[in-house]
Amino acid sequence: MPLNGVGRDVPDRIPGYGDARPFSADGIAETPLREAPETESGAETRGRSVAKVVPLERSLDLLDLRDGMTISFHHHLRDGDLVVSMVLDALARRGLRGLTLAPTALFPVHESILAHVRAGVVAGIQGSVNGPVGRAASDGLFDGPVVLRSHGGRARAAASGELPVDVAFIAAPTADPEGNLSGLSGPSACGSLGYAHTDARYARQVVALTDTLVPYPLPRASIDQSCVDLVVPVERLGIPERIVSGTLAVTKDPLRLLIAERTARVLDACGVIAPGMSFQAGAGGISLAATAAVRERMRERKIRGSFASGGITGDLVAMHEEGLFDALLDVQSFDTEAVRSLSRNPGHREMSAAMYACPSSRGCVVDRLDAAILGATQVDVDFNVNVNTESDGVLLHGIGGHMDTAAGAGVTVIVTPLLRGRLPMVVDRVLTVTTPGSTVDVIVTERGVAVNPARADLAEALRKARLPLRDIGDLRDDAYALTGEPEAPRFGDRIIGVVEYRDGTVIDVIRNVV
Amino acid sequence: MPLNGVGRDVPDRIPGYGDARPFSADGIAETPLREAPETESGAETRGRSVAKVVPLERSLDLLDLRDGMTISFHHHLRDGDLVVSMVLDALARRGLRGLTLAPTALFPVHESILAHVRAGVVAGIQGSVNGPVGRAASDGLFDGPVVLRSHGGRARAAASGELPVDVAFIAAPTADPEGNLSGLSGPSACGSLGYAHTDARYARQVVALTDTLVPYPLPRASIDQSCVDLVVPVERLGIPERIVSGTLAVTKDPLRLLIAERTARVLDACGVIAPGMSFQAGAGGISLAATAAVRERMRERKIRGSFASGGITGDLVAMHEEGLFDALLDVQSFDTEAVRSLSRNPGHREMSAAMYACPSSRGCVVDRLDAAILGATQVDVDFNVNVNTESDGVLLHGIGGHMDTAAGAGVTVIVTPLLRGRLPMVVDRVLTVTTPGSTVDVIVTERGVAVNPARADLAEALRKARLPLRDIGDLRDDAYALTGEPEAPRFGDRIIGVVEYRDGTVIDVIRNVV
Repeated sequence: MPLNGVGRDVPDRIPGYGDARPFSADGIAETPLREAPETESGAETRGRSVAKVVPLERSLDLLDLRDGMTISFHHHLRDGDLVVSMVLDALARRGLRGLTLAPTALFPVHESILAHVRAGVVAGIQGSVNGPVGRAASDGLFDGPVVLRSHGGRARAAASGELPVDVAFIAAPTADPEGNLSGLSGPSACGSLGYAHTDARYARQVVALTDTLVPYPLPRASIDQSCVDLVVPVERLGIPERIVSGTLAVTKDPLRLLIAERTARVLDACGVIAPGMSFQAGAGGISLAATAAVRERMRERKIRGSFASGGITGDLVAMHEEGLFDALLDVQSFDTEAVRSLSRNPGHREMSAAMYACPSSRGCVVDRLDAAILGATQVDVDFNVNVNTESDGVLLHGIGGHMDTAAGAGVTVIVTPLLRGRLPMVVDRVLTVTTPGSTVDVIVTERGVAVNPARADLAEALRKARLPLRDIGDLRDDAYALTGEPEAPRFGDRIIGVVEYRDGTVIDVIRNVV
Repeated sequence: MPLNGVGRDVPDRIPGYGDARPFSADGIAETPLREAPETESGAETRGRSVAKVVPLERSLDLLDLRDGMTISFHHHLRDGDLVVSMVLDALARRGLRGLTLAPTALFPVHESILAHVRAGVVAGIQGSVNGPVGRAASDGLFDGPVVLRSHGGRARAAASGELPVDVAFIAAPTADPEGNLSGLSGPSACGSLGYAHTDARYARQVVALTDTLVPYPLPRASIDQSCVDLVVPVERLGIPERIVSGTLAVTKDPLRLLIAERTARVLDACGVIAPGMSFQAGAGGISLAATAAVRERMRERKIRGSFASGGITGDLVAMHEEGLFDALLDVQSFDTEAVRSLSRNPGHREMSAAMYACPSSRGCVVDRLDAAILGATQVDVDFNVNVNTESDGVLLHGIGGHMDTAAGAGVTVIVTPLLRGRLPMVVDRVLTVTTPGSTVDVIVTERGVAVNPARADLAEALRKARLPLRDIGDLRDDAYALTGEPEAPRFGDRIIGVVEYRDGTVIDVIRNVV
């Protein structure tokens, strides 16, 4: 069996997926121009004087709905989302079967999907999975593989027609009767609707669900009426306290704080903390603490940066408001402060998934990043990163923007403790390659900092700054010395997950756990 | 030869145009799903680390440019535009030939195009013409017909692939180095970039030209970087005083003021001037005066309207700021006050041509209009309106949003004096049907008000309000009594213009003048 560009066994043809174009480390593959998606609606409303505002059941009468179709959802309501369940329940009542779900991400609340899989209503998932649904996939629940895509890769697939969405169901915290949509207000306010833009643009039929219908015209809309077929008022879109966090928790663990502080030193040594800097970090505890450490340095030296991007948090809002970043480019507002800021601050701008990270767009924001701080569930001695499967081999996480940001940023830093519980985080070979080592520059642990050999320039800078450089193999050895070599999970023969690189090539496959 | 739905001779096949689908008065034609446009760029920059900011000549090196291609421009710089000339001159220096221009509109400044037509650089025009270029078309300068489309029809044709744009050259009053674009600031500020959105979205290659390059990222952009291939800095985009007017001139002519006041009475009698009203009027002298008369009534009765749309003027801004309209939906900012308001007023929103008027979109703003006040160069006894050709048969004007707004608005009022100079404006049969009579409700002249017989409801309301109702035939007779029956222009055999209805059917053809 041929090995792809990161040395993984990827069959030429994958049952339930089709032909796999192998990932190549040589660069981004061209997206083949398949039949481009229709830009016209298939719903019964176009060109007729049917009012767009209809109850959910009536909307399903008006849509072209068939067994086997692909339906999509965005994840801005996160673990507070009630829309996926509501829609699937309604489709199930109509007897639809064999649907493919294309969510931009899933959360624990979406465990309700599993019953619909067992009943045959849902046949597969393209886009992202989460804990319970991922675990079920690893157990072999789905007939074919789930197809995992990054945020940028999903936008690319939607634009190219590789992911043809028949109906996009868009949770809209505020909507007017023509389908101008906003996430800024209403009880389910979530801020940016960045991930929904792609679906609104490319889906054959677009249905907005809202619990806050306001008079026409909504003056500030993220998605405009020309994309929306139907507007469905519902009692509740979501559970507010599970949609946005109050304040995200910075880690208090001394070991993680050490990693965070060290990460700021790494960025400083690489010359990133400088006027005009651009920056992205995740919302994990270490990343938040590293952002705080970067902030201290920017303040001390009165550095005015250019922008912070990605998921926006209250701490980035504070940095923007104190003049440390001129702009915030927001694909997803993580907390209540970020939601408020998007309304209030002219320099805080919503962006689509395509603008954020799509590799076939004409230029995406990740390509402008000086630095990205990213997490991992495993890294290996080739600097490959796994964010999908846990050490037991179970598929528990989606990709998010991980591989997009790593590919784009000038310096990509992976932050991870050497161990989590009794499991090594630096390993010989990751169970799943999510992000190729060729796009990863530095790994920061409490036991030392490893630099990708391809980046001799950075190694030299970090050495001068007296950072504790270690060979990545030594970090692995340290980890194994403490835990023993990890036992390989027992995988079966079935491919239950396909990890697409952002260009649509297959970077890895995930097999069932037995 | 068959007659179409407004009784016009339209051949099945038009040389230089192809098969003509005849206009039908029965409703909007479905847009056939031709091969959808590519969403990927053809420029040499995608997926490579070529900086987007390049001089004009270098941009032409990077583009896929060939003889016979279609290139597009927007008209937000109006009569101050220097971009069309600059680009055509550069393309001519490269020896390109047979180009089709697809401007959203043209102005007298664009007379410079004619030399390029004579030299073979430009072969045809799809979209709009103006005085000098239109006159040259009527004289038979072009080999094939120019194709005239409304703003909504052009957006539809671009979306469906009927108007495949190879390169869109977008004048951007402000741009950042990745191609985030805004019309709000810079010496060539023009406010809304509404007509450019369609081209940015569908063109195979997109080049922004700017005289104001600002640091990345531009926080408030009308068009985002994911659509833009190249950014070309130039010394001057336009001549500011010819881009936006200072204050548009309301008519002082007593006869026109009478028509304006009467128009407000008509709208009042039709029940339009009421809470929640929506309204669009042109920027002609009578329309501006009619808007002022509507404003007085709204003020007196403390009426709070919903929105005004289309081209936005300072008087509409004032109405918005005094609370008479909750929102302004702006596809084109006509004067400096409108440009400033778009920056300042959250209720003043930019909209794309598609959102404004596209009949194949999922819902456009014109369909929400309670009333539209529109001008004419001729109307006839069937209520058909001509805005394209003058009484001498010469093609002098584009369509703008005329047929879109008439089709969408609840009440469409045409305002016109009975005579202009010694020419009758109400005639037996318009020389060119731009807007079908089936979408026109009322014609207001100084000699009386004619109501379309299909709107008995309106006639009854106007009668009750003691408006001077006249039969349209009587208005024509009055006009002819004063001027004599107008002499028909002498047309040749060649079809020099095709007037597409907003759905892509052919509503009329225009022949050369001999």
